[in-house]
Amino acid sequence: MPSYTAPTKDLQFVLHDLLQISRSDIPGYADLEADFTAAILDEAAKLGQDVLAPLNASGDSEGCRLENGVVYTPKGFKQAFDQIKAGGWNGLDLPEEFGGQNLPYLMGSAVGEIFVSANMALNMYQGLTHGAISAILAHGSDDQKATYLPKMISMDWTGTMNLTEPHCGTDLGLMRTKAEPQDDGSYKISGQKIFISAGDHDMAENVIHLVLAKAPGGGEGTKGISLFIVPKFLVAEDGSLGARNGVSVGSIEEKMGIHANATCVMNYDDATGYLIGDLHKGMRAMFTMMNEARIGVGLQGYAQAVVAYENARSYALDRLQGRDVTGAKNPDGPADPLIVHPDVRRMLMDQKSFVEGARAFTLWGASLIDRAHRAQDKDADGLISLLTPVIKGFLTDKGFDMCIQAQQVYGGHGYIEEWGMSQFARDARIAMIYEGANGVQALDLVGRKLAQDSGKHVMAFFEMVKTFLKENEGDARLEGFLVPLKAASKDLQAAGMFFMQRGMKAPNDALAGSSDFMHLFGHVCLGLVWARMAKAAYAALDDGATDRDFYEAKIATGRYYMARQLPATALHLARIQTGADTVMALDAEQF
Amino acid sequence: MPSYTAPTKDLQFVLHDLLQISRSDIPGYADLEADFTAAILDEAAKLGQDVLAPLNASGDSEGCRLENGVVYTPKGFKQAFDQIKAGGWNGLDLPEEFGGQNLPYLMGSAVGEIFVSANMALNMYQGLTHGAISAILAHGSDDQKATYLPKMISMDWTGTMNLTEPHCGTDLGLMRTKAEPQDDGSYKISGQKIFISAGDHDMAENVIHLVLAKAPGGGEGTKGISLFIVPKFLVAEDGSLGARNGVSVGSIEEKMGIHANATCVMNYDDATGYLIGDLHKGMRAMFTMMNEARIGVGLQGYAQAVVAYENARSYALDRLQGRDVTGAKNPDGPADPLIVHPDVRRMLMDQKSFVEGARAFTLWGASLIDRAHRAQDKDADGLISLLTPVIKGFLTDKGFDMCIQAQQVYGGHGYIEEWGMSQFARDARIAMIYEGANGVQALDLVGRKLAQDSGKHVMAFFEMVKTFLKENEGDARLEGFLVPLKAASKDLQAAGMFFMQRGMKAPNDALAGSSDFMHLFGHVCLGLVWARMAKAAYAALDDGATDRDFYEAKIATGRYYMARQLPATALHLARIQTGADTVMALDAEQF
Repeated sequence: MPSYTAPTKDLQFVLHDLLQISRSDIPGYADLEADFTAAILDEAAKLGQDVLAPLNASGDSEGCRLENGVVYTPKGFKQAFDQIKAGGWNGLDLPEEFGGQNLPYLMGSAVGEIFVSANMALNMYQGLTHGAISAILAHGSDDQKATYLPKMISMDWTGTMNLTEPHCGTDLGLMRTKAEPQDDGSYKISGQKIFISAGDHDMAENVIHLVLAKAPGGGEGTKGISLFIVPKFLVAEDGSLGARNGVSVGSIEEKMGIHANATCVMNYDDATGYLIGDLHKGMRAMFTMMNEARIGVGLQGYAQAVVAYENARSYALDRLQGRDVTGAKNPDGPADPLIVHPDVRRMLMDQKSFVEGARAFTLWGASLIDRAHRAQDKDADGLISLLTPVIKGFLTDKGFDMCIQAQQVYGGHGYIEEWGMSQFARDARIAMIYEGANGVQALDLVGRKLAQDSGKHVMAFFEMVKTFLKENEGDARLEGFLVPLKAASKDLQAAGMFFMQRGMKAPNDALAGSSDFMHLFGHVCLGLVWARMAKAAYAALDDGATDRDFYEAKIATGRYYMARQLPATALHLARIQTGADTVMALDAEQF
Repeated sequence: MPSYTAPTKDLQFVLHDLLQISRSDIPGYADLEADFTAAILDEAAKLGQDVLAPLNASGDSEGCRLENGVVYTPKGFKQAFDQIKAGGWNGLDLPEEFGGQNLPYLMGSAVGEIFVSANMALNMYQGLTHGAISAILAHGSDDQKATYLPKMISMDWTGTMNLTEPHCGTDLGLMRTKAEPQDDGSYKISGQKIFISAGDHDMAENVIHLVLAKAPGGGEGTKGISLFIVPKFLVAEDGSLGARNGVSVGSIEEKMGIHANATCVMNYDDATGYLIGDLHKGMRAMFTMMNEARIGVGLQGYAQAVVAYENARSYALDRLQGRDVTGAKNPDGPADPLIVHPDVRRMLMDQKSFVEGARAFTLWGASLIDRAHRAQDKDADGLISLLTPVIKGFLTDKGFDMCIQAQQVYGGHGYIEEWGMSQFARDARIAMIYEGANGVQALDLVGRKLAQDSGKHVMAFFEMVKTFLKENEGDARLEGFLVPLKAASKDLQAAGMFFMQRGMKAPNDALAGSSDFMHLFGHVCLGLVWARMAKAAYAALDDGATDRDFYEAKIATGRYYMARQLPATALHLARIQTGADTVMALDAEQF
């Protein structure tokens, strides 16, 4: 059985040593003193470790089942869900007006990492609800907010997002689900949606589906799409639940992982729906919550790597196999622990340096969301809009790789379900796919975000790196960070330049390098946060921090990333610079 | 439902255009005319496509079950197994003396690719039998050969290999299974073995277990280990089956994949065993068949990528989603097929260029085995010994990556078991682990094979690359192959030099780069075979080959590999040259 211990110390390091949140001018951050955030994280850790994590493996093996139209979640899930509700965790970063606690999104993300590492499938019921709440907050009428938000924030009701149909995923213009306007201002929704995470279950009284559908008169493609609220049970004026709506679960998908989350085929058959936001502007309504949802998925990618790494580390410390070639480390035992072997170390260092970097990158991104929303900072909004596909795409690709590597540390035991390492990999796999497959993230980055506001945000990013390098120039202790960061950043600029010069005339030259660019960008971001973390760790040591071991390990882990991972930028650049020629050389029939 | 079409044309290209086998001086190769091999491959293709592949998904979902001590394989497996038997496929490359057809190992590998792509779990029952036969052929007495080989070659009986125990995998010196000598010359074997693939099943009359165990007097560690034949049913003098032996299945493991292969915990309780080979020389006996077994696993890695790629290609050609940014390719349809998108192309080209390169590399390796065994060529033996960990480690790591990428082409559908892409990835995952986890392959390569015979074989490899480059210097058509191959080969030499200079004094400096070295080596091997394939394809075109499309696609696919994949050697070299400093910087407690 795998175990999980929440990395509260490292979360605190990111919040306070790196981001120095309580000194930030972002509204609400001043309250986030170290003791306060520690108390929150400790409570979240207890819930994650003691309640959610113990259900992770059993939830995977039991899965969800559909019987007579009712979806049943695995044993224990309802009780755990009730504890999340009782703790008010879902409202942590949501408005007080509707029953939330109004803490920054950053704190929701820090707690989110813990819950996702502990039990990703269970956390998704909450995550989807959070996404639906965001949509209603941003686009709902006052009445809609009053009707739905308090119940959803308390998790008496949960939410879903309905985009995909059998024949259309990324290309929503192909959508067929229809919305017919009714005399009372409501709509009748008919069609089939697939891959609906948390589509139905037995843990809440009601499920509020947010459904994209085509209402008449909107034109072709995505232009005619509107967003609708479609409750499982209709809600009366007084908030009580009425009749069952015309929405039902067709089936539950058999998937590679996240078995404990019901991925449903949803059938809408003249279901009553209520327009949310403007008619025919459904795509815009979806996009406004995309950044948040995608950062949440990036978080899933690295959070699975966190728990996979923890277990790989424990196994490498415990399992005796072979001898250190430089001399026995456990001479009285039959063999040395796995961790003496350099190639096992390499795998663990890959994982450790990735998850710590990814955590810092994601929480920095979350703080940009807070700055954008709470301080109405347009530059922060532009920057996080640029970084979002990187957080989603890079962290889920790498997070999955790290789960595979953690599994590899276990040898044959890694392949046996009982040990739990397979589940981390299988669960992490979905994060590369949903909320826009990672190729779509790369396309969004290269085809849209780079040029947004005339390239202002990517310029600001380069400026940020340059400023950091300049400010710390000559700091000999940081040389192992500054030199690789500078080289990596140069590679990123060269790639951007290549796209500018070639991509205008021949867009395929840019698109053929889009995934490499996303990874290149991701490495530079992790390089930047690692350099900043090293600086923060040295500062703490200089200030006489008592836990010297922690800070020294932080610096050593960062050095590993800079030396062993960051040089990947040169490979990505080399690939990008070959353009589309070899990529597009074959006719479709020659494949 | 996924589909499978055996790549007989490409197999023929490798056998005849690239390896030119019928002109080879390896004994037995002269018979391998193109018509003859085509007939064999076509028959294998029929069996693979029509019988084995249709059982792959159902075998995965049904799995094996243990009831009252009996292991049941999934529905249809026995019938398919009987067809493999009836076709004499297991004896294809085994001695005529015992009922085989005595074709080269190369042909066994070419057919093996088809069977593994079609149904890896089912093929493993045959593969393990093949391994056990090899051990008996190499080390068995004449009596043992006469007793076991005919029945095993016909697959009336199957075989297994029993190495791993709960507390020892790679480090066999920790083994506890005991062999007590009996007065009649046999032994009583007692102990528990785990992860025994094809450990038991309902498709054959008997299972012949090859078991490593410690007999008294052999000393500590691996020195005391001997190899024993332990039949499930004892075999009487006349070859008839007698009493059930003291070996039983404790349980079947729940695994990430290869569900249709019974991975058993085997309990030996005073089971009668017969020494095979010399007492206390069991490790040597195991090692003599290691090359073959490991090449077989490398083949599994790329063979799963083959079928995953085939399906990803079909999906990309069929699925309509989005538009070609350079202009609609399917203007009358609602959208263009996925394959118009450069990032989808990139994924398909990664897969195509890998599987075709891997196929050529593996079959070249198989021909080296034939040269070593059939022509008693010590240089070929040394070279394949060097290349074996590369074939096993590099091709399974990359093969798995390609399965993941093929799954990614499907978007959300890739995550749903019904579409079959998850199974390819889950099945391929084991190949990175068993027959020595890939980290152990890297260790074998760097710690043992590089320096074998004073480095003679790696020198011969470099010489081979150098000769090829020289012979083709100035051939403008091959420039896109020669230039990258030269650069990659230089990286490999630089890495070898680094190990020589640093590894002697500080072995961890070499071991910390062992996995990167294995990958670097793998890329150079694929670069070499791609350059050779390009040359062969140009030769065919010059000779007026009618299927110009095939040869032109071959060259274009090779160009992609050289331009987009081969530059990875520089990254691996950069990592290697950082040595062990950052890898070993942390104390074990700091992880």
